[in-house]
Amino acid sequence: MEVAASRSVFSAVELDRGECLRLLRNAPIGRVVLSMKCLPVALPVNICLLQDSVAFATDQGSKLDAAVTGQVVSVEVDDIDTFYRTGWSVLVTGVADLVSDRHEFEEVNARLHPWAPGPHPFFVRIPTTLVSGRRLMWTSDDAV
Amino acid sequence: MEVAASRSVFSAVELDRGECLRLLRNAPIGRVVLSMKCLPVALPVNICLLQDSVAFATDQGSKLDAAVTGQVVSVEVDDIDTFYRTGWSVLVTGVADLVSDRHEFEEVNARLHPWAPGPHPFFVRIPTTLVSGRRLMWTSDDAV
Repeated sequence: MEVAASRSVFSAVELDRGECLRLLRNAPIGRVVLSMKCLPVALPVNICLLQDSVAFATDQGSKLDAAVTGQVVSVEVDDIDTFYRTGWSVLVTGVADLVSDRHEFEEVNARLHPWAPGPHPFFVRIPTTLVSGRRLMWTSDDAV
Repeated sequence: MEVAASRSVFSAVELDRGECLRLLRNAPIGRVVLSMKCLPVALPVNICLLQDSVAFATDQGSKLDAAVTGQVVSVEVDDIDTFYRTGWSVLVTGVADLVSDRHEFEEVNARLHPWAPGPHPFFVRIPTTLVSGRRLMWTSDDAV
């Protein structure tokens, strides 16, 4: 009797918007991607999903400036298992805006507790206007 | 007898260049931060340290274009423990360049094995011209 050989291969699949938002909803950390003094930077922050926007807290500085001046900013979120070499990443891109509505401010304030020390009195939101994601999977190719 | 109350607080410390390079040397994954069609993006890639540069493999596209046209690109690397709420992040920024020297190409080719499927025939390097990092720690404040 001959046993079919099983070969494991990596594959990458694009994630739809619903799956991207589901992953964002459970992610405590993202990286704000923007231009700082004309240089590209990515800065880890605590995030939460506020309706269809990604929100984070900040002090004065480039992240606040981006919101005040309406810059296009991205937030990257991922979860990668370096042992199994699998994982996913999601990128949200939109015009940054300050959370100024009182009810929304209170909602974010109740849910977002930045780990970094120091004051974070402002909340910035990035609408999920553009969202893309992909998952890297380990699949079994049963062809002999 | 009175026991001094111990209060735990978070603190953030800046990392020096040597510590940043040590952390980069052991990191399998980083995020390439660049402008793609005028939008800020951060894309997870496998990385390795080639002398004082961060190297990654790519196919044709924005990451290759950045190297061919000498754009300023960043690579962000972090390791964040979401349970203990501690971790570190390092950001490298420099002019992207193709690895074209044969010996360097072979060195990167031997060490870098991208997990993502598909061909990755080009290697891009970002010199650690600008490197910064910080560590978020959980410390004990022994003041009563």
